[in-house]
Amino acid sequence: MSLIVHKYGGTSMGSTERIRLVAKRVAKWARAGHQIVVVPSAMSGETNRLLGLAKELAPAKETAAYQRELDMLASTGEQASSALLAVALQAEGMPSVSYAGWQVAIKTDSSFTKARIESIDDKRIKADLDAGKVVIVTGFQGVDPDGNITTLGRGGSDTSAVAVAAALSAAECLIYTDVDGVYTTDPRVEPNARRMPRVSFEEMLEMASLGSKVLQIRSVEFAGKYKVPLRVLSSFTPWDINIDEEAKSGTLITFEEEGASTMEAAVVSGIAFNRDEAKISILGVPDKPGIAYQILGAVADANIEVDMIIQNISKDGKTDFSFTVHRNDFARVTDLLKAKVLPSLGVTDFVGDTKICKVSIVGIGMRSHVGVASKMFRCLSEEGINIQMISTSEIKTSVVIDEKYMELAVRSLHKAFDLEA
Amino acid sequence: MSLIVHKYGGTSMGSTERIRLVAKRVAKWARAGHQIVVVPSAMSGETNRLLGLAKELAPAKETAAYQRELDMLASTGEQASSALLAVALQAEGMPSVSYAGWQVAIKTDSSFTKARIESIDDKRIKADLDAGKVVIVTGFQGVDPDGNITTLGRGGSDTSAVAVAAALSAAECLIYTDVDGVYTTDPRVEPNARRMPRVSFEEMLEMASLGSKVLQIRSVEFAGKYKVPLRVLSSFTPWDINIDEEAKSGTLITFEEEGASTMEAAVVSGIAFNRDEAKISILGVPDKPGIAYQILGAVADANIEVDMIIQNISKDGKTDFSFTVHRNDFARVTDLLKAKVLPSLGVTDFVGDTKICKVSIVGIGMRSHVGVASKMFRCLSEEGINIQMISTSEIKTSVVIDEKYMELAVRSLHKAFDLEA
Repeated sequence: MSLIVHKYGGTSMGSTERIRLVAKRVAKWARAGHQIVVVPSAMSGETNRLLGLAKELAPAKETAAYQRELDMLASTGEQASSALLAVALQAEGMPSVSYAGWQVAIKTDSSFTKARIESIDDKRIKADLDAGKVVIVTGFQGVDPDGNITTLGRGGSDTSAVAVAAALSAAECLIYTDVDGVYTTDPRVEPNARRMPRVSFEEMLEMASLGSKVLQIRSVEFAGKYKVPLRVLSSFTPWDINIDEEAKSGTLITFEEEGASTMEAAVVSGIAFNRDEAKISILGVPDKPGIAYQILGAVADANIEVDMIIQNISKDGKTDFSFTVHRNDFARVTDLLKAKVLPSLGVTDFVGDTKICKVSIVGIGMRSHVGVASKMFRCLSEEGINIQMISTSEIKTSVVIDEKYMELAVRSLHKAFDLEA
Repeated sequence: MSLIVHKYGGTSMGSTERIRLVAKRVAKWARAGHQIVVVPSAMSGETNRLLGLAKELAPAKETAAYQRELDMLASTGEQASSALLAVALQAEGMPSVSYAGWQVAIKTDSSFTKARIESIDDKRIKADLDAGKVVIVTGFQGVDPDGNITTLGRGGSDTSAVAVAAALSAAECLIYTDVDGVYTTDPRVEPNARRMPRVSFEEMLEMASLGSKVLQIRSVEFAGKYKVPLRVLSSFTPWDINIDEEAKSGTLITFEEEGASTMEAAVVSGIAFNRDEAKISILGVPDKPGIAYQILGAVADANIEVDMIIQNISKDGKTDFSFTVHRNDFARVTDLLKAKVLPSLGVTDFVGDTKICKVSIVGIGMRSHVGVASKMFRCLSEEGINIQMISTSEIKTSVVIDEKYMELAVRSLHKAFDLEA
């Protein structure tokens, strides 16, 4: 008998029909002798519907008073789906009880719409589990020190589930979603993509562009910090699938034991990609101290996030400086450069390109293997794909290439690193 | 400057468009120097939508665990509309804050789906009012001693508003709805019906069939107990109507000062009617002690509510016994009579009729005036309407007549008692 946390996403809770199937699955786990805590998301579309109403009434405001009311509003979606799941479990003959965030209590700071969990009281949950009930803890929400309702930001139910699992020292946290695990790359781009039975926390973090479709990245960090074993699996398998088979399905996200077992780790675990970025290069920048700050300080002050930053060695006292931003921020950045940055640098020229994509190879094994990056570059060169920018980290190598080569690059790399099913 | 409670019903909160108008009206009152607490209902249709989802998952169950979850579920509708109103007020430039029932706290007993309010803590509300905020207190809901969310039953937001007004010693509780007051009778039946500028609590209680369309009867009892001046008025007037004019509009519900001022009270204030009832008469019942209990005990045991009960004097040791029930319960009652009651009475005959209606004249003034009832009977007889049953109370006389005469009876009585506009 283990204490296990189940988390069900919005699609899994998307209709009464689907909620009934979730109840049957949960009841199966409870009847197998496990203590089950369930963290459900709002029914899909509900959070958008609620926030859409607020938007009709008032344009988004940055005031704390306004953000507080958005949390009062948005938190109702999860509370309703939690109560509905409790009703469905009772209809299955399974004793159940649902709790709002403040009832448990999931205590957070006061950062409305993006609060951080500070503590969870496990007393009430444990008493109910010991009384034989399935306990439903409403996801996405908490309560601040002044008794205000807070929410954890988009996808926050994943974080709620991991936090509840950590507080209860759960044996495992099962994240049920509409995909059956984490893949070596997006199967829509590479049909031969393979489900990974295991992936390390660090790889999950680096594969944000793949992983974020599956799991909120913050919940992965949280799980890593508290060493909560996390499994991503599908709620679209038949509910009465054999429980031992189900317990091994999906992808287990593990935290690597200090340096151990990397020997047999695959060199590259997956191919991530991202076509949401745009590239900006400022050419012929005088190579003197403070240049990077002069350029990026202005961008940061405008609250624009920068991803890759490249500065190469200089020639004749001049250098080229490049960075990427989200494509939605491209126009704002170019305006900013023209108005403020370039004049102060004494530079007139810059090149912007929105038709780019970033492709990355990710793998814990890269740490201990040389030549992985060069193998990536050779593969791309053999396909005639020009590399525009390169950046590397310990377990990831990313390149920026022309957008039109994205699928070709992903498929070639997937093959070159033997990731095929 | 007064402390005033506004309550807005589901139709008044029915869309973002309507919520914006509520916000403008509330802001007008606050800018006129009043401290305003608002109790909004859920957006119209929302409670039914939520409970409909629960019904799809499980047929209604009588267990406390199930009822508890219904309250978790249904309470989200009011919480969302409260937050939306706070957002709309902020958009109007009016500082505002919304509170769920547990945040204030509105403490209730643990009778899920029909909880009773036990206390309200006014500290947080008063501090916010003093800080210049409009305070929105979520209606319909509270929290029980174990920290579970409860709801007050259908129309419970009226009761919430009155309870908040009582706890804060508000100068007045304004119940904004989609009608502009309480009428001498239903204007759809008698176009000459007249809005009453004032009506007594007791008359409101007796006019349930008129009043319940406007106000939850329990809230009227509550207001009477705590002597909260209650005004029913329309939220469909232009929001920028002159505030002094608005403050006098609608119908003020007053509690009669002991015996005073009944002299000038109208003899009859209004004509109530009800076509939801059915009549059952058991003929030739042996007139001996315990008969009434023998008949109605069985009905009560089946949890069926009885309204009028008539037993006339006996002839030849036999009597006729009649009563009315809700039309929806008619079939169950006749089954019950045939199976259990009649055999034990040694009676074979009974008459049932669902094509009846009840028409009542109501008025505090009836207490001190004789001949009011006979005036009613003469009026009906002049119209050729046969009276099937009569029952009287201190301030109400009701008759049961053939359903087809209902409109005729209402209009004739309305005229006979000089109620016309």
